Amino acid sequence: MTMLALGIDLGGTDIKAALVDPAGRIERRLTQPTQAELGPDVVIDRMIELVDRLRGGQEHDDPIEVVGIGVGTPGPLSPTRGVVFQAANLPGWLNVELRERISDRTKLPVVVDNDANVAAYAEYRLSGDDTLQNLVLLTLGSGIGAGTILNGCILHGHFENASEWGHMIVEPDGRPCPCGQHGCLEQYASAAAIARTATERVEQGESSSLAQGAPPGKGTTPSRSRLGMRITSADVATAAQAGDSLAKEIWDRACRYLAIGCVNIQHALNPQRIVLGGGMSAAGEFLLDPVRKHARAIRWKLCDDAPTITPAQLGNNAGTIGAGLLAWDATQ
Amino acid sequence: MTMLALGIDLGGTDIKAALVDPAGRIERRLTQPTQAELGPDVVIDRMIELVDRLRGGQEHDDPIEVVGIGVGTPGPLSPTRGVVFQAANLPGWLNVELRERISDRTKLPVVVDNDANVAAYAEYRLSGDDTLQNLVLLTLGSGIGAGTILNGCILHGHFENASEWGHMIVEPDGRPCPCGQHGCLEQYASAAAIARTATERVEQGESSSLAQGAPPGKGTTPSRSRLGMRITSADVATAAQAGDSLAKEIWDRACRYLAIGCVNIQHALNPQRIVLGGGMSAAGEFLLDPVRKHARAIRWKLCDDAPTITPAQLGNNAGTIGAGLLAWDATQ
Repeated sequence: MTMLALGIDLGGTDIKAALVDPAGRIERRLTQPTQAELGPDVVIDRMIELVDRLRGGQEHDDPIEVVGIGVGTPGPLSPTRGVVFQAANLPGWLNVELRERISDRTKLPVVVDNDANVAAYAEYRLSGDDTLQNLVLLTLGSGIGAGTILNGCILHGHFENASEWGHMIVEPDGRPCPCGQHGCLEQYASAAAIARTATERVEQGESSSLAQGAPPGKGTTPSRSRLGMRITSADVATAAQAGDSLAKEIWDRACRYLAIGCVNIQHALNPQRIVLGGGMSAAGEFLLDPVRKHARAIRWKLCDDAPTITPAQLGNNAGTIGAGLLAWDATQ
Repeated sequence: MTMLALGIDLGGTDIKAALVDPAGRIERRLTQPTQAELGPDVVIDRMIELVDRLRGGQEHDDPIEVVGIGVGTPGPLSPTRGVVFQAANLPGWLNVELRERISDRTKLPVVVDNDANVAAYAEYRLSGDDTLQNLVLLTLGSGIGAGTILNGCILHGHFENASEWGHMIVEPDGRPCPCGQHGCLEQYASAAAIARTATERVEQGESSSLAQGAPPGKGTTPSRSRLGMRITSADVATAAQAGDSLAKEIWDRACRYLAIGCVNIQHALNPQRIVLGGGMSAAGEFLLDPVRKHARAIRWKLCDDAPTITPAQLGNNAGTIGAGLLAWDATQ
């Protein structure tokens, strides 16, 4: 009998689930489409289906016992109460008692947390650095998701909604954000912000190799313009690396805003490390180098308390691994 | 025999010291000038002098026993090592082993922490609200000092220099800050920033009752202009309350930046309460009202996780009380 935890990463497109050992190694994994448009009841059915298939474990000679389930989900939510208040990419999710509903049907202990928190926890636990106790993860995609580990624990805050670094205001009276604020970091430094800026400037007639457009569906986080043009942040990265000056300018400007975000996180929490993940981090050193360079130039000179800025290690598996590890923690 | 802790608040102008009971009540207090210009050896002598006088306690019928000493000091410093790396208002303080030096001479256990952290800890412990576990204190003076309480503990971070909310960048490419950055919050929302803006605009010939100048030495944090004019943030508050339009504009703008700072703290840590202290907070509701109003207008609408914004309760005693309470904690 092998004891394993079950980690679920609930996204707007896919539900990922995996059996995870106490060290965060994935033993087996399954994915299926979320079908979010069918509402929370169906989505929960589909989560339970994955749980049942993973618990069945017919393919294993060695029978398994699942010690508990961890779920990383979009929010805002209350990990304490196990309730998802709402979720931008999951229509109909309003005050869903996710922990209780999964626990009732599986008869297993369930923990629920914010998807970015869960990913940050995985990056922390599997960092391989025993001295690491304080870390911030920024996931750069359609927005900027964020999770924070303080002294080895996920930072939740009094209202359980801390660590929304993507919504720190870096430009008073700046671009409007769907959240209702103006000038949020994610309006300047997310993959979607880069795509949108590139599309707008090409539409305004600026000269760039980006004007030729990219094949529909290529890359991540396309920004559809009024003219039906699709430019992704990956297109911008590619064009910038090829020397296109508009693309270089847009990419560099986004990296500078990310650096401002990193400096503000430095002063707020003094973490040891800031980890950049999400689709945009596929650019690797082409992202990290300018962010580090700008951060060095921008940040204060009073003392040397700057975090290192590093790439995420776990990619798409961070969610299931982190959720599985949280389920393990809950058995302690 | 009464057991008491001894709290010391080391400032650039005065050293305050007090005997503090386990509930944070001051039993006896003494103050003397720091004479910072004479360097760390003399300043430490003067601290020891206060300790000896308070320990002597000849005025008491009941002899006292001091259980330990807590010191709140400017920084950056390492509370773990008890070393002050440097201190803006204390010339010659470079890597001063403050904890060891005081402990060696008093034969008492000593804890050292950042002055704003210590004040925040006092505001937290004496809040009278048992549900309060997460709080940020901003002290509005010549800069913006800040201390953060998370789950009842002072936030230090990996490099022990967290919670420098005054140096979050709110205007990329904004006003230069002595710290080496541009656009720090304290360049827009501290008492000194208000005084400076008012002085500059009056010098530029703008019409205002502030142009008559204020008596030298009145109010806090004067900004000396090239023309020798002195306008303080208290002058600006007074003129704004009397209806002066330039003063109203300057005051309101600073309050809006403070609100941006509060919204960014909300998203970072989700504290239950943000406390405004320091000289500028003497304006009371004339400060708090517009900060709250702007914060309500600026902050996101996704969920209701905003902290309350309240005035500091302990004034100039926060430092000695907090330091004394930390000394008590260290005896546990």
